[in-house]
Amino acid sequence: MPEQPLEAGTTIAALGEFGLIARMTAGLGTRPDVLVGVGDDCAVLDVGGEQMLLATCDALLDTTQFLRRVATPEQIGRHAMATNLSDIASMGGTPRYALVSLLLPSDLSIGFMDGVYRGLRAEAERYGVVVVGGNIVGAPTFGVDITLLGQIERGRALLRSGARPGDALLVTGALGEAAAGLHLLLHPELDVPETIVARLKAALVTPVPRVPEGRLLSLLGSVTAMLDISDGLAADLGHLCERSGVGARLDEMALPITGETRHAAQLAGQDALEWALFGGEDYQLLFSSPPAAVLRVIETLSIALDTPVRVIGEIMPPEAGLTLRARDGSISPLPPRGWDHLRSTSGE
Amino acid sequence: MPEQPLEAGTTIAALGEFGLIARMTAGLGTRPDVLVGVGDDCAVLDVGGEQMLLATCDALLDTTQFLRRVATPEQIGRHAMATNLSDIASMGGTPRYALVSLLLPSDLSIGFMDGVYRGLRAEAERYGVVVVGGNIVGAPTFGVDITLLGQIERGRALLRSGARPGDALLVTGALGEAAAGLHLLLHPELDVPETIVARLKAALVTPVPRVPEGRLLSLLGSVTAMLDISDGLAADLGHLCERSGVGARLDEMALPITGETRHAAQLAGQDALEWALFGGEDYQLLFSSPPAAVLRVIETLSIALDTPVRVIGEIMPPEAGLTLRARDGSISPLPPRGWDHLRSTSGE
Repeated sequence: MPEQPLEAGTTIAALGEFGLIARMTAGLGTRPDVLVGVGDDCAVLDVGGEQMLLATCDALLDTTQFLRRVATPEQIGRHAMATNLSDIASMGGTPRYALVSLLLPSDLSIGFMDGVYRGLRAEAERYGVVVVGGNIVGAPTFGVDITLLGQIERGRALLRSGARPGDALLVTGALGEAAAGLHLLLHPELDVPETIVARLKAALVTPVPRVPEGRLLSLLGSVTAMLDISDGLAADLGHLCERSGVGARLDEMALPITGETRHAAQLAGQDALEWALFGGEDYQLLFSSPPAAVLRVIETLSIALDTPVRVIGEIMPPEAGLTLRARDGSISPLPPRGWDHLRSTSGE
Repeated sequence: MPEQPLEAGTTIAALGEFGLIARMTAGLGTRPDVLVGVGDDCAVLDVGGEQMLLATCDALLDTTQFLRRVATPEQIGRHAMATNLSDIASMGGTPRYALVSLLLPSDLSIGFMDGVYRGLRAEAERYGVVVVGGNIVGAPTFGVDITLLGQIERGRALLRSGARPGDALLVTGALGEAAAGLHLLLHPELDVPETIVARLKAALVTPVPRVPEGRLLSLLGSVTAMLDISDGLAADLGHLCERSGVGARLDEMALPITGETRHAAQLAGQDALEWALFGGEDYQLLFSSPPAAVLRVIETLSIALDTPVRVIGEIMPPEAGLTLRARDGSISPLPPRGWDHLRSTSGE
């Protein structure tokens, strides 16, 4: 958030992604049929039927051609659809329709495009999504910008707001795998076992959106707030706390970091905890539940979907801020830093 | 449409925009709730209420920085929203919600972004649209990619299909003004009166989406097919004929070309007819009506909205193809060429 007046000539990079979003959306009009507007994973719109409409958009741009070096065209298409599916999942909704906007350099090959679209459509079909529209525009950089529409029963959308002090903080799956995968891709010289590289790279390149988990959590009715982890655990927990008006304390001991991730960190001379806290792109669901509901939530997701869920901390009063309890029991402030899509570096 | 097998290494520029769209959308799945999918100005979706949902997306990219030279930031934002509004208008719908995806070079100034968003939001509010979501991504080129959602009563959406031989072909407003404006902007050395330059430039930079006209035409129930003119009259008439399975004959004499456009063409040594037929970006509504309804349609739009509507030709049997009747009464084939967003030149 900008704390001092900004000159019109200030660059948007200096302002940063979240500062820019705050500036662009300040004073945005609304309407009674807009149940949730800008600021959550999806908008929630009352379009007159029994089901509320969910709407989200997310773009994948291959500015540095990094994607093309590390992923197949199919994987790029799949990834672009998966990140949007994850936003619908994080509301507890059912994904339904996609509009696909393509940015295409004119020298791109048809074979590449065929692959991207194959991956994109396969991922859409896997989750019951129909591609209903789109747009093509010439551009210097290849990109896919998808708008995904979904549906959810009235009053069942799981928002970022709603977490209450005393709620348990839970997360699906494992953390830090995508960051580990990125590090290994950027450092091919590292001597890491092939099976570990494959698993961590897959976590980055082909994340699995937690759509059935989101649905189930919405139906259980025991979740007070939820979002998906795209910017990183600390940053996204910061978003949840900000929208809910609460603080939170994470327990380092409880974070679900796999043996593969720890092993890779060790071989790479990196800190697996850093990857888990600040890495981003995990696309797990982070949510809060009243303590009395925790056991049922964990058991239900485990039995119905075979999805591990872990309690990783607790929602605190707002004055407690965001903290991390280390293995030795000491508690220290947790910076809500993560991925800034404009600075392309860790922001404040 | 590709007529011979293509190598995977063929570039998308060689395939062209419409060839690529045909290739990408071939065999797309559908579902009963998708009343209209890819191939019209908007998708029409039955989301369970009394109103059908309309969905469209359109991107504005400033690849050559041309926009920034000829338009203010406010005008760029307004234009990006207007082209999407025009797609909702062309179905006869009411625009409702927008998601705005921004592609931002990191050195872009906040002042520029403020202006873009101001223009974009003012245009949205003018037509009752609430911005409910969006996305920001770093990019080498500035761009705005908007998804617009609208609503329309069941069975009232005006599609590209539905035109029948014998129907009159009508158009709102004037044709060729945007192309004239573009030519004058590209040739500032031309000695054209300032008032004419201002009017034609405005037609290009700040087109007015025909939203109330579209609504009224949908309510009148006398329109068999409709779209908006974005690629150019000939190209868009080609789209209408293809989707309706008909031919059409345009009357050169009847085309609404203003005195300003003719005067500018004369001074520039250009052909105003070329601008009107192939220019693109006019954002007028092109539609077909049974002959018996024509007078009522023209009178209603004139009285209710003060919008001129002109009969410019006739829908023909498919075997007649696309033709133009010249001033001397001679009839010749009309090539459905127009703007190709990948080739950036006139296509075939």
